[in-house]
Amino acid sequence: MAPTLKEVAERAGVSRSAVSRTFTDGASVSAKMRKRVEKAAEDLGYSPNVLASSLTTGRTKLIGLVSNNFHNPIFLEVFDLFTRALQEKGLRPLLVNLTDETDPANSVRLLRQYSVDGAVVASSTLPPGFGKAFRDAGVPVVHAFGRVTSAPEVHVVGIDNIEAGRLAARSLMARGYRHVGFMGGPEAASSTQDRLRGFLAELATRPEIRVSQSFATAYSFEAGRHEMQSLLGGDYAEAYFCGDDVLSIGALSAIQDRQMSVPKDIGIIGLNDMEIAGWNNINLTTIRQPISEIVHSSLELMSAMLLDPARLPEARIFACHIVERGTLRPQLQAGAA
Amino acid sequence: MAPTLKEVAERAGVSRSAVSRTFTDGASVSAKMRKRVEKAAEDLGYSPNVLASSLTTGRTKLIGLVSNNFHNPIFLEVFDLFTRALQEKGLRPLLVNLTDETDPANSVRLLRQYSVDGAVVASSTLPPGFGKAFRDAGVPVVHAFGRVTSAPEVHVVGIDNIEAGRLAARSLMARGYRHVGFMGGPEAASSTQDRLRGFLAELATRPEIRVSQSFATAYSFEAGRHEMQSLLGGDYAEAYFCGDDVLSIGALSAIQDRQMSVPKDIGIIGLNDMEIAGWNNINLTTIRQPISEIVHSSLELMSAMLLDPARLPEARIFACHIVERGTLRPQLQAGAA
Repeated sequence: MAPTLKEVAERAGVSRSAVSRTFTDGASVSAKMRKRVEKAAEDLGYSPNVLASSLTTGRTKLIGLVSNNFHNPIFLEVFDLFTRALQEKGLRPLLVNLTDETDPANSVRLLRQYSVDGAVVASSTLPPGFGKAFRDAGVPVVHAFGRVTSAPEVHVVGIDNIEAGRLAARSLMARGYRHVGFMGGPEAASSTQDRLRGFLAELATRPEIRVSQSFATAYSFEAGRHEMQSLLGGDYAEAYFCGDDVLSIGALSAIQDRQMSVPKDIGIIGLNDMEIAGWNNINLTTIRQPISEIVHSSLELMSAMLLDPARLPEARIFACHIVERGTLRPQLQAGAA
Repeated sequence: MAPTLKEVAERAGVSRSAVSRTFTDGASVSAKMRKRVEKAAEDLGYSPNVLASSLTTGRTKLIGLVSNNFHNPIFLEVFDLFTRALQEKGLRPLLVNLTDETDPANSVRLLRQYSVDGAVVASSTLPPGFGKAFRDAGVPVVHAFGRVTSAPEVHVVGIDNIEAGRLAARSLMARGYRHVGFMGGPEAASSTQDRLRGFLAELATRPEIRVSQSFATAYSFEAGRHEMQSLLGGDYAEAYFCGDDVLSIGALSAIQDRQMSVPKDIGIIGLNDMEIAGWNNINLTTIRQPISEIVHSSLELMSAMLLDPARLPEARIFACHIVERGTLRPQLQAGAA
């Protein structure tokens, strides 16, 4: 029932090949011919079938959007940004759910079966082995929220997590906390290790401040809640830098259970600045990771790789900054100790 | 660099057609032949290319997952369930973002370009015209969270929203509230109208109870917060049935801003029971919509339609129930007034 390429060719009075070229990116067709074909296509309500055109181009226009955490609300924002941007580019977002997947080889098989032109891995916890396995299998890959290094093995876009750790530490120091804690995400993730490294490095300049560290098992509300419950059972710190916003919210809930007050009894700073962090029943002070910029930059790199698969891997780093809300006490006045 | 069908055929010592048939659902191939081909494929690390097989089958195995609200955290749960279930069935989830889209014709064009085998519309607010337009364009469609009627025009899976409205009303009546409010989602949505109808019908049996009604402009935190701010500026009710959980959380935040206490000063009941409703900094009493059952049932219907596109439209209705948490006051004792 949908109009065919043949019908468009007949109506325009041109060859089928001319219609095909009109709708193939980069194919040669005169402006006059293009106009004629597009007019006929519009009259008939014809839209080029990606499947058919992929036979000639070898391209499916499918871009895998790979994630391994569907319980962290930040990903809804990521999915929204990705799908809109891909739709605008005429590409097709294929969702790949790697929750519970630990073997890169299985994921490679899945992506191959899915016939994607490329894959954007959106995760700070998926081991770098996944990105490399995709690349080795010939799948163009960009790792968004991955570890940015000076010698990237695959394209990577994100923040400098060491710098984020430093920023959190400076922010707690400026508020006069004398015992601070790092309540990180999964310990094995490079993002966790980098944030911890920056946090400790900055605090090393102030040896009078006590520092403790611990790790949640996942980026989830329950994991954050559980970890803070344990901490509150011992010699807890005056303020914590939590691995991300959802962990922070779990921590806030454990604090509330003990009838303790934030920021009076204990301070919390998160990371991401997801929408929920700004809800005023949450009102979380956090470090803003520029999600939209990271997503758009990842897709720019993906488009560039589709044109030039041999393009050398590149790391793109975005700055982050503190968003002041209600979960840390005020900064000390200049001159005060 | 990926192994080809031809290489598998050579290694197995069989024809290319035999390999192709082995990997085509429903194609005829002997058990012995299948075993031989599968062994060779495994040795070589070959996985069948969906794109190539779609040429013979006319199927892309792409299922469009259509939503128009990427700001409601309930959809992260929906996406998680859908992607896992589709991956298990060997189908591929293509995300279609219809936020800001009001013309079904544009969406039909998009789905056609995307070459999906079928589409699951996951929305309680997308007008029924979208589902019908997809069906008329020859795209098998299931409307999840749509309006269930006795004469469905497309396959639909969801709850009986009239019954949900009745359930909310009974629940408020059992707690002795004398002035209750309906703070619905978008007024034009059939789900909103049905919930209101049930709510009013049940309350009509108790004319001494005052009832008021209003509507938020979207299913979002901000819309719920804004609507409750307006309500609190006037002669507000003792308890509200809110359109869904995210609206309820927005309403709770507006109540908190006025230094009012829940459930002491005002009661709230939501709908969905998304994960966040159970976070104990939220602790929302709500009506549970069985999301997982609705998603799985929608995909069962989709699979059935792919086998039999002429299958008559069917409505599947799931029961919902109250989840008691902390935002309504306790039920009256039996015998008390």
